[in-house]
Amino acid sequence: MTNSATNLRLKLPVACIILEVIIIILFGALVQYDNETDAKQWHKELANGSSNYDNDFYYRYPSFQDVHVMIFIGFGFLMTFLQRYGFSSVGFNFLIAAFALQWATLMQGFFHGMHGGKIHVGIESMINADFCTGSVLISFGAVLGKTSPVQLLVMSVIEVTLFAVNEFIVLSVLGAKDAGGSMTIHTFGAYFGLMVARVLYRPNLDKSKHKNCSVYHSDLFAMIGTIYLWMFWPSFNSAVTAHGDDQHRTAMNTYYSLAACTLATYGLSAVVAHDGKLDMVHIQNAALAGGVAVGTAGEMMLTPFGSMIVGFLAGTISVLGFKFLSPILEEKLKIQDTCGVHNLHGMPGVLGAIVGAVTAALATKDVYGDGMADVFPDIQSGDVEASFQGVRQAISLAVTLGIALLGGLITGFILKLPIYGAPPDTICFEDGIYWELPGEEGSHEELTTVRTPDEAEKLNA
Amino acid sequence: MTNSATNLRLKLPVACIILEVIIIILFGALVQYDNETDAKQWHKELANGSSNYDNDFYYRYPSFQDVHVMIFIGFGFLMTFLQRYGFSSVGFNFLIAAFALQWATLMQGFFHGMHGGKIHVGIESMINADFCTGSVLISFGAVLGKTSPVQLLVMSVIEVTLFAVNEFIVLSVLGAKDAGGSMTIHTFGAYFGLMVARVLYRPNLDKSKHKNCSVYHSDLFAMIGTIYLWMFWPSFNSAVTAHGDDQHRTAMNTYYSLAACTLATYGLSAVVAHDGKLDMVHIQNAALAGGVAVGTAGEMMLTPFGSMIVGFLAGTISVLGFKFLSPILEEKLKIQDTCGVHNLHGMPGVLGAIVGAVTAALATKDVYGDGMADVFPDIQSGDVEASFQGVRQAISLAVTLGIALLGGLITGFILKLPIYGAPPDTICFEDGIYWELPGEEGSHEELTTVRTPDEAEKLNA
Amino acid sequence: MTNSATNLRLKLPVACIILEVIIIILFGALVQYDNETDAKQWHKELANGSSNYDNDFYYRYPSFQDVHVMIFIGFGFLMTFLQRYGFSSVGFNFLIAAFALQWATLMQGFFHGMHGGKIHVGIESMINADFCTGSVLISFGAVLGKTSPVQLLVMSVIEVTLFAVNEFIVLSVLGAKDAGGSMTIHTFGAYFGLMVARVLYRPNLDKSKHKNCSVYHSDLFAMIGTIYLWMFWPSFNSAVTAHGDDQHRTAMNTYYSLAACTLATYGLSAVVAHDGKLDMVHIQNAALAGGVAVGTAGEMMLTPFGSMIVGFLAGTISVLGFKFLSPILEEKLKIQDTCGVHNLHGMPGVLGAIVGAVTAALATKDVYGDGMADVFPDIQSGDVEASFQGVRQAISLAVTLGIALLGGLITGFILKLPIYGAPPDTICFEDGIYWELPGEEGSHEELTTVRTPDEAEKLNA
Repeated sequence: MTNSATNLRLKLPVACIILEVIIIILFGALVQYDNETDAKQWHKELANGSSNYDNDFYYRYPSFQDVHVMIFIGFGFLMTFLQRYGFSSVGFNFLIAAFALQWATLMQGFFHGMHGGKIHVGIESMINADFCTGSVLISFGAVLGKTSPVQLLVMSVIEVTLFAVNEFIVLSVLGAKDAGGSMTIHTFGAYFGLMVARVLYRPNLDKSKHKNCSVYHSDLFAMIGTIYLWMFWPSFNSAVTAHGDDQHRTAMNTYYSLAACTLATYGLSAVVAHDGKLDMVHIQNAALAGGVAVGTAGEMMLTPFGSMIVGFLAGTISVLGFKFLSPILEEKLKIQDTCGVHNLHGMPGVLGAIVGAVTAALATKDVYGDGMADVFPDIQSGDVEASFQGVRQAISLAVTLGIALLGGLITGFILKLPIYGAPPDTICFEDGIYWELPGEEGSHEELTTVRTPDEAEKLNA
Repeated sequence: MTNSATNLRLKLPVACIILEVIIIILFGALVQYDNETDAKQWHKELANGSSNYDNDFYYRYPSFQDVHVMIFIGFGFLMTFLQRYGFSSVGFNFLIAAFALQWATLMQGFFHGMHGGKIHVGIESMINADFCTGSVLISFGAVLGKTSPVQLLVMSVIEVTLFAVNEFIVLSVLGAKDAGGSMTIHTFGAYFGLMVARVLYRPNLDKSKHKNCSVYHSDLFAMIGTIYLWMFWPSFNSAVTAHGDDQHRTAMNTYYSLAACTLATYGLSAVVAHDGKLDMVHIQNAALAGGVAVGTAGEMMLTPFGSMIVGFLAGTISVLGFKFLSPILEEKLKIQDTCGVHNLHGMPGVLGAIVGAVTAALATKDVYGDGMADVFPDIQSGDVEASFQGVRQAISLAVTLGIALLGGLITGFILKLPIYGAPPDTICFEDGIYWELPGEEGSHEELTTVRTPDEAEKLNA
Repeated sequence: MTNSATNLRLKLPVACIILEVIIIILFGALVQYDNETDAKQWHKELANGSSNYDNDFYYRYPSFQDVHVMIFIGFGFLMTFLQRYGFSSVGFNFLIAAFALQWATLMQGFFHGMHGGKIHVGIESMINADFCTGSVLISFGAVLGKTSPVQLLVMSVIEVTLFAVNEFIVLSVLGAKDAGGSMTIHTFGAYFGLMVARVLYRPNLDKSKHKNCSVYHSDLFAMIGTIYLWMFWPSFNSAVTAHGDDQHRTAMNTYYSLAACTLATYGLSAVVAHDGKLDMVHIQNAALAGGVAVGTAGEMMLTPFGSMIVGFLAGTISVLGFKFLSPILEEKLKIQDTCGVHNLHGMPGVLGAIVGAVTAALATKDVYGDGMADVFPDIQSGDVEASFQGVRQAISLAVTLGIALLGGLITGFILKLPIYGAPPDTICFEDGIYWELPGEEGSHEELTTVRTPDEAEKLNA
């Protein structure tokens, strides 16, 4: 199972250490505490009448930690469903997330506005960096099992950069709203990753086909990821909205959307799955689509009723996508989407963008009152009509799709260079290629045998 | 392993989709944002001098998320101890919780007071809905492995409704206190579920006996559930108490009760278990009884000392229940209580109700000061004596037991109808009946390391 | 696998119940609600103009719960990497943590200042008790697999007591700062545990060598522990700092240190591990060293830049320690450090203490402004120079090492008495000695059996 081309001894250390040294130098040159984390500045604010309890830490940090759990446990364990790729799923997820959040702090810092040539960091930059990381992890899902960690790091460098560009265009130039990232995170990450997967298409991947499926325990590990993503999605969508009713409402809308989505997922799964049974793939993924689909409109006055309808639709299209669309993507479009991110993040992300555009276009002062200033400041100030805000949202979706697809295309070709230690077609979806596996050297492998009763009987006979 | 009677292709989709459509329609007709989630209303409060930081989101949401983790991870994984029922444990837990929290929002909304014909929703209704869901999941524990998901959904519909009725009677009519739900959640859920299990008694369940036990890894998965329930129980009991000292004290009392309970559990387990060893069943369950048993008195001035005594007692009776009472329940009373909910929720819930009644009866102005207004408003206002508050608490226990037992009886007979795809006696405690299992169709089973000795030898040769 | 000497029927109940009864009596005599948890006292504060939202519960409890998760899930699952010691890892972790937090409340209460002869408890005492517990669990890591639960309880009694003494000397007498416990928690726990392991050295431990390693699934369980520790370490280090900028800054510094540490860990692991592959032992442990190493300086104005350098160094020395130092410790110094706590807590703790001393010595009013009062009150008040604060920090490290080593030495000899049911050399790292394992009595054993190659061969013959 060893292979000199996939040996990481040189490649991975070089990548990790060069990247980290660059980051540290840039942080030394450019990054400063913001006013809420700097001892001197914050105490000036205290002297001006603020209270320590006003520090934004207390109003954002619990949300941050929920998002953090989604990034590291949620995404990491969701991808452990493959039978022999658990180390890589959790481990590479860990590596690229730890890298991406640092790189994202720099890239987003450039675009979110420098302060006298410095990037200011605090709890909001931490959440935004985790968001950007989430996008990279979605793309990771599309290429799972078929890429080396060095490829993933290179992908992260490019994707984080383009994420920051797209986010800047969508939020700052176009003035769209996307607090939970239906567009900037999910649509972007999914189509970027799908395009990378397209370019990296492996015609002979069926040689690893027998490993591209789950086993009983790996599916249970994956459910840890699913459930954490599901539970904390309300925190994700509300983490950077305005304080007060906005954060409260966003969390609640997401909660209802997810609940309705789950019922739709179970119902549809039993319809389409083999033999009238439930399919773990649907439960693990489609039940989450409701969170994706209210990523844009969650902070708006979508109402619980509206949220549930959106969630129900999202679960439905996601299950149907797994059943009917994924095989087509693979066979016709040559997109080998390991985790089905098109069904969980792609289509529900686009749905979320459309729902956001429609909900924005329908915003009225009568419904939002003075709360309009938080959700749609440009409508409140009279700069734009609600209908035009809807148009902005729709344009943002188009821009996001364009940057994601073009970025993924270029990235795919860069990742195709034969220098990153990518696994051969015969050893995809296999931890052993990059990880020292327990018992590989010694003779303890047989120690974990799970026998069927038949075999056990024979042995006892 | 397939069986036309247990085929879910029609039954489950019909149940899920009809229920969800009904819920969505009722939400559309009846549910509104409350003042803290509605953009217009909240900004009116801001105009009247409130601050965004006063929004209850910041003082309840972290507790809510802890409770949410208990419901979906805690209960879900606690029940994965069965060797081949992990998909169903986590998966059906997920399904019925996602349904029950929506249905509970409606049912509790009816009884907690409508606002101009509308149900107002916000963080408190979300916590209360999760609480009600917890009660259903306790009942699920009693019938685990022997019911179809359709039966579970039907049970949820009825149990949530009766939960709301009982909660209304106990808290609003009788004026009892029960912040952590020793009575309304644990006693109710346990005795309801036990009565359902009684009616659904399967005389031939021993045909599935070999699957009604754990394996090594399934016990470890279950410990994830146990530990999360244990850690977050302080948040559970304090989630809806009054703000300030009440919430703080309730969390701390629960923390001490659980710590003492854990020591009692380990000590007792080694006494009663086979061969002077520890029994995972006790650790997974009895160590949690301390949280149940301070569900009523936790917000009162129980003192850490009192909390520890209660926790110690709860752990003790719970271990003894598993050892001595559960076999009797099964053999004499014909109650097949899969998870032993009588030992974790039933008896400790009753203990908690009694402790609550005694603690209430002993409340004095000298101890509570003006804090009496938060804990016992009717004593503070002079409407009742402390001793009478104790009587109210005791009556509430009786009412709860009555509604739970009667409700469970009726529900049991409804669930006995042969239309829900319940598993036959020979295939209980088995995921394969409702789930597509990995490797079932193909030939990938051998891939799970996981060689037979023969194969291993061949490979080594 | 049973053995009368290791039978717990008498030993464990006696230990648990005597200890718990002593604790309950002492709590009854000595422990009181503090002003924020007592109904009467808090309502006096309300009458004086406080708001319920000022209760410290809201500014500490989320941090407390994150720390709680680290203690019970983080430490517990991190140690499940051993193939047949998962029950004990999670289960004994649970037991000694539940004991230690109660005992720590008393011991720390004595030293942190009594109030009229009473120990006051609230959210801060809960966090501090969990911190002290963490130290005991670090020591547990050094002796994992080779000790009985009774030994662990006895160790906890002594270690908690000495922890409180050392903490009092370091923080109160010497006036050092150590919010995240690089010295008081990590250095103390590691060297205490290593000395205990030294005294309990087992020359014939290689008889259990085949069980002192992981299997595929046990490594995945361990990653749950790792990731939770990694995610919540920012909460750990900031849990008891001053409110406002301090807490905010500490969390952020820790987050950056960990991210940089992770990149260093992956890079170095690929360099030193066999065959250019990654080694799970490094990922599970060394990636966390960045949190340990900013435990002292995290609250200071270390800057993100400084935090990253510290994290990078910590990951580096930790991986190198696993590769080159651990074998020396075992062969030359006869320290059998099961979990490698010297690499994760020992060296990074010392590094953290040194970084703290240097950072303190460099503190200037120009950088800290009035925030100096929070971080270094004695410098602000003019009592000491910054350089002298650095000296205090360095002395504190020396004191901590001294007390830890001496305490561990004495404890080791106490634990060596042959009365605690310690496992024989041939049955270390084995759950079966203290736990009823599933399938042991019945006939289901074959379903999950883990056989040795010998047994498998015999069965085949």
